Amino acid sequence: MKAITLHGVADVRVQEHADPRIQEPTDALVRITTSAICGSDLHYYHGRFPNVEPGIVLGHEFVGEVVEVGAEVRGFRPGDRVVAPFSISCGRCEACKERLPAQCQTTNRAVFGGRFGRQYPGAQASFIRVPFADFMFERVPAGMPDEQAIFLGDILATGYFCAENGGIRPGDQVAVVGCGPVGLLAIQSAQLFGPARVFAVDRVEYRLALAEAFGAVPVDASRADPVAAIRAETGGRGVPVAMECVGHASALETALGLVKAGGTVSVVGVYAEAAFPFPISQAFFGDLTFKIGICNARNYITRLLPLVQAGRLAPTRIVSHVMGLAEGPRGYRIFDRKEERAIKVLLKP
Amino acid sequence: MKAITLHGVADVRVQEHADPRIQEPTDALVRITTSAICGSDLHYYHGRFPNVEPGIVLGHEFVGEVVEVGAEVRGFRPGDRVVAPFSISCGRCEACKERLPAQCQTTNRAVFGGRFGRQYPGAQASFIRVPFADFMFERVPAGMPDEQAIFLGDILATGYFCAENGGIRPGDQVAVVGCGPVGLLAIQSAQLFGPARVFAVDRVEYRLALAEAFGAVPVDASRADPVAAIRAETGGRGVPVAMECVGHASALETALGLVKAGGTVSVVGVYAEAAFPFPISQAFFGDLTFKIGICNARNYITRLLPLVQAGRLAPTRIVSHVMGLAEGPRGYRIFDRKEERAIKVLLKP
Amino acid sequence: MKAITLHGVADVRVQEHADPRIQEPTDALVRITTSAICGSDLHYYHGRFPNVEPGIVLGHEFVGEVVEVGAEVRGFRPGDRVVAPFSISCGRCEACKERLPAQCQTTNRAVFGGRFGRQYPGAQASFIRVPFADFMFERVPAGMPDEQAIFLGDILATGYFCAENGGIRPGDQVAVVGCGPVGLLAIQSAQLFGPARVFAVDRVEYRLALAEAFGAVPVDASRADPVAAIRAETGGRGVPVAMECVGHASALETALGLVKAGGTVSVVGVYAEAAFPFPISQAFFGDLTFKIGICNARNYITRLLPLVQAGRLAPTRIVSHVMGLAEGPRGYRIFDRKEERAIKVLLKP
Amino acid sequence: MKAITLHGVADVRVQEHADPRIQEPTDALVRITTSAICGSDLHYYHGRFPNVEPGIVLGHEFVGEVVEVGAEVRGFRPGDRVVAPFSISCGRCEACKERLPAQCQTTNRAVFGGRFGRQYPGAQASFIRVPFADFMFERVPAGMPDEQAIFLGDILATGYFCAENGGIRPGDQVAVVGCGPVGLLAIQSAQLFGPARVFAVDRVEYRLALAEAFGAVPVDASRADPVAAIRAETGGRGVPVAMECVGHASALETALGLVKAGGTVSVVGVYAEAAFPFPISQAFFGDLTFKIGICNARNYITRLLPLVQAGRLAPTRIVSHVMGLAEGPRGYRIFDRKEERAIKVLLKP
Repeated sequence: MKAITLHGVADVRVQEHADPRIQEPTDALVRITTSAICGSDLHYYHGRFPNVEPGIVLGHEFVGEVVEVGAEVRGFRPGDRVVAPFSISCGRCEACKERLPAQCQTTNRAVFGGRFGRQYPGAQASFIRVPFADFMFERVPAGMPDEQAIFLGDILATGYFCAENGGIRPGDQVAVVGCGPVGLLAIQSAQLFGPARVFAVDRVEYRLALAEAFGAVPVDASRADPVAAIRAETGGRGVPVAMECVGHASALETALGLVKAGGTVSVVGVYAEAAFPFPISQAFFGDLTFKIGICNARNYITRLLPLVQAGRLAPTRIVSHVMGLAEGPRGYRIFDRKEERAIKVLLKP
Repeated sequence: MKAITLHGVADVRVQEHADPRIQEPTDALVRITTSAICGSDLHYYHGRFPNVEPGIVLGHEFVGEVVEVGAEVRGFRPGDRVVAPFSISCGRCEACKERLPAQCQTTNRAVFGGRFGRQYPGAQASFIRVPFADFMFERVPAGMPDEQAIFLGDILATGYFCAENGGIRPGDQVAVVGCGPVGLLAIQSAQLFGPARVFAVDRVEYRLALAEAFGAVPVDASRADPVAAIRAETGGRGVPVAMECVGHASALETALGLVKAGGTVSVVGVYAEAAFPFPISQAFFGDLTFKIGICNARNYITRLLPLVQAGRLAPTRIVSHVMGLAEGPRGYRIFDRKEERAIKVLLKP
Repeated sequence: MKAITLHGVADVRVQEHADPRIQEPTDALVRITTSAICGSDLHYYHGRFPNVEPGIVLGHEFVGEVVEVGAEVRGFRPGDRVVAPFSISCGRCEACKERLPAQCQTTNRAVFGGRFGRQYPGAQASFIRVPFADFMFERVPAGMPDEQAIFLGDILATGYFCAENGGIRPGDQVAVVGCGPVGLLAIQSAQLFGPARVFAVDRVEYRLALAEAFGAVPVDASRADPVAAIRAETGGRGVPVAMECVGHASALETALGLVKAGGTVSVVGVYAEAAFPFPISQAFFGDLTFKIGICNARNYITRLLPLVQAGRLAPTRIVSHVMGLAEGPRGYRIFDRKEERAIKVLLKP
Repeated sequence: MKAITLHGVADVRVQEHADPRIQEPTDALVRITTSAICGSDLHYYHGRFPNVEPGIVLGHEFVGEVVEVGAEVRGFRPGDRVVAPFSISCGRCEACKERLPAQCQTTNRAVFGGRFGRQYPGAQASFIRVPFADFMFERVPAGMPDEQAIFLGDILATGYFCAENGGIRPGDQVAVVGCGPVGLLAIQSAQLFGPARVFAVDRVEYRLALAEAFGAVPVDASRADPVAAIRAETGGRGVPVAMECVGHASALETALGLVKAGGTVSVVGVYAEAAFPFPISQAFFGDLTFKIGICNARNYITRLLPLVQAGRLAPTRIVSHVMGLAEGPRGYRIFDRKEERAIKVLLKP
């Protein structure tokens, strides 16, 4: 089959790769109909997760059709359209039972297209092997396009998780730092919790424009200090909930600067750095809740699906490009460089 | 001053009444600019709370301007525009400190225009005396019309309380039984919690139409059994959250019939009856949470105000009639009989 | 095998019964080492659940040793000591995924030794077939006696669920109505939430004595009105949390009479009656949360096990009688009549 | 009057100081009967909060008798025995209404015996002026000794806040890092939430012994790595709740090392340092909740009082020394150096 593989920094190629096959009776094979390029793929692209083996198939967001199931798969069969979370979980270990599937002890926190635990080939390909299919899969409702379902397995769940962790209560003012794909879906998710206002911070005009279209008040950090700007809008006190959707120290500083005493900073940006200089005394005197984590996406897919169906979440609005798998390297490049007003790039095998 | 007073069943009159005056150093006097007729006023109108003395000034929803304050009132002064809750609370007793101001021990749960604890004259008048002004008042923001602020003190807070008690989580399906003024604002409030769908049950076409305008799916109980209709829409399982905004046994039966196993029925309808035949065995096997209560409106005013300012709550949309105080008896009549497409009637002194 | 079977009102017999056998690949067979008689068995005994077929094997509390597993059982094997919940759940349906296993759609809410959904033979026998073994079983830690583990599957989980539903916060005063087996374990469970005081209401002296040994303040309802007595102890206001562990209208009236404005009544008593005259107006003006339900015991077993191991829950203290299966009819009789200071009767096959 | 005053690093003196007097109509004067030396006083003692003026009266924990009240104080009068929180709050500003009295905007977060906002004289003296007496005071129940009440205003509330922020659920394993006065009361408080086990980490033998007497499992960090030791006791996974009660980077590292994926680190140690090197990538992949803050002690006094009365909290057990005010300098020395098995030192004027 064709697949997008990684060979070095900024070196992704479209190559022939062996087709996956059923290895365990709980596996299923999926013919991918849509995959996507994620911000966390850029960490691999830039060599920030150097433990992966060269030639790894990238990608962990996909929708597809089941083509074969192992002997013990009961809930799904060939022909079913499915979506799955980015992290691979057994559904039976202690961590999974505690509703922390991203911490699965059986797979040792594995992800598609990455190497936590052992390395699993990814989804930017024609086919993918999905372990523990009964636990992993969610059926895509008939008539729902791939584009509406695909983000349930990662960035929509992650954006929602960020909002949920923020503990937004109706009437709150909220700030979302970062208007990339996750940030934009975090804004949509924050709106589900009834905030009075959502401030959206970024430096990229076309992304801010989309944030505004999602009901946020855009704050262009290239023009003014966002901490000062948002404090000025909130009587000097800051916001009770600040959401960090970038994964960069400067964004986290902004979020910590924005938050009101007694408030919460919720972080879903992926940090490759080991340490961050945390303002501990300020946090102490300001009574801070700080939540940071990798999303247990499996927990959210079922809950968010009806919100997509009802149109209360509109994830397709962030799709800026749809291209063939063969164009994947260009997809990586424009997404990385924010060229061509890229926000989210989908790949069609 | 002029005031609307009650003299018997369905006998409300516009009469001259002595002006109120400051009695305690924590009192304030308010010149009323807008008051309203509430569904609970109809209980008095129909003689269902017979303990009130004839001639009582009715009404407990108002916005007005402070004209005089007692010696110990610190936060407000003549000229301030204010709104206040329907129940009268000291802010200092054990119950008030526990954030249950509607259970105030100092006033013995008094309300304006009613007689719990002792009788207090109401707000369908030119002036009103407000005890414990520092605790009771919320400043109305400059530029906000009376019509936007008035419901914060009762029916908007009550509708929100109903939704909050329902414990709605994003993606839930919700049913609101009753599309009177409280039910309609309960629908608006429910939308703040990110439901996938809100079903609105009533028998009055023009009220259902407004519910639909607020994003709800209308269910006309005059045409079909709402329990069957909503169960059919929810895979037979019912909704996780049913909200009862009528105060009548049949509405409560509907709500209990609609709710899914493990779900919540939240009731804000005012019950004058002593007992209701509760389906206890069904509730046991269905794992029910049942919440019922008089709204601690003071707790919600500050929180809801920015949502009104932001337009996320649009309480003025339920105002069907605005009339002079002198027309109050007609206001009562059309509201009671649902004539002239009445929903909410405001009175201007 | 030998089994206790029901043949009519108060007619339980020890009879020969066909051994169970594996029927589905997800089944397991268990050789029972200890079973128990439960208060809900008395509903069958008194003919209040008349839908069961004559000759049903009673009982739903057990500990035993796995003797055979179906082809798809992965987590358990012969020789494992296990405990299981009283209700039979697949772990895979929508309700189970929502963490409502007692509402399992696959089994239609079945229980051992009863007939919700279809009838399943019970545990007062030498062997039992357990469906969905991987989901149902919890391993009993090495060295833990049967007596410590057995109640995890029903009455300890139920008592805990009652306390949890009460929403007890540290410093609260709590009342538990009923000091039978569930009530006594509800008292132990309530103590886990840091109450300042727990009042225990019953009419049976030896049960009140045990409640007192568990740290409760005994209130003998045969000597004084418990509502008046507890209100006198709480400044007239009542308790924020009242727990009902009987399943009788008079107990529920007591619980509703005890609760403070803004408080919670949590009910786990099993109601066979269809309706209860609920004091709806009092509940409205008192701002009540009422929670009632059948315990989703599977959710609690893993969490409570370490508390039993640590000695913070001491369920064996309620065991008053241990007897052979052959003596089961006597066990039923003394438990039903509260003879011989019976509290909880264990049966050894 | 006599008072303990600060003049430089480790230079505290007992001196004559002008008696306080009523300055505002909401003030009260208290004759102190017991005060205490707090760990946060040692920050001043070591010059880590250098903004205080020389000669400041130290101390913020006290019980005493009201001797005079301002004209607007309504709830208290001379002769009342009272306790108050360490931070000074008006009860009326936006922050106070949001239940964040330690963030009071009127006083600008002032504390007794310190200089946040403006400087207020402290409680290690014969008399103290207490602003906003109606909001600040809690009546000490008749018959309760000073020693039982004094810690409600600071370290008992703080220890409880630490446990509450941890979100302990019954059956959890918990680690408390630091067995000083706050840590020991945090252990007592943690026990209110039903943990299966509480691990207590310190290096001081006599403090660990007291932790063990409070039901904790002592872990002597001077003998073994506490992270390794506690992970070994918890199947390698760590604890869901780690509480940091020291205020030192190494203690925080320990707490972060102890916590399980998906868990919470709750910090009440006072940090004078600006920054801490936070393990951001580890936190991200481990799904961390991090809560840190100054305790809003006023919120807890009323709730914790009945727990002290009931003996469920036994704060007097940490009192190691009671001495006259004149011996204060020795009290500071032995507390600072952990000499004479000092834990908590009380001062009697």
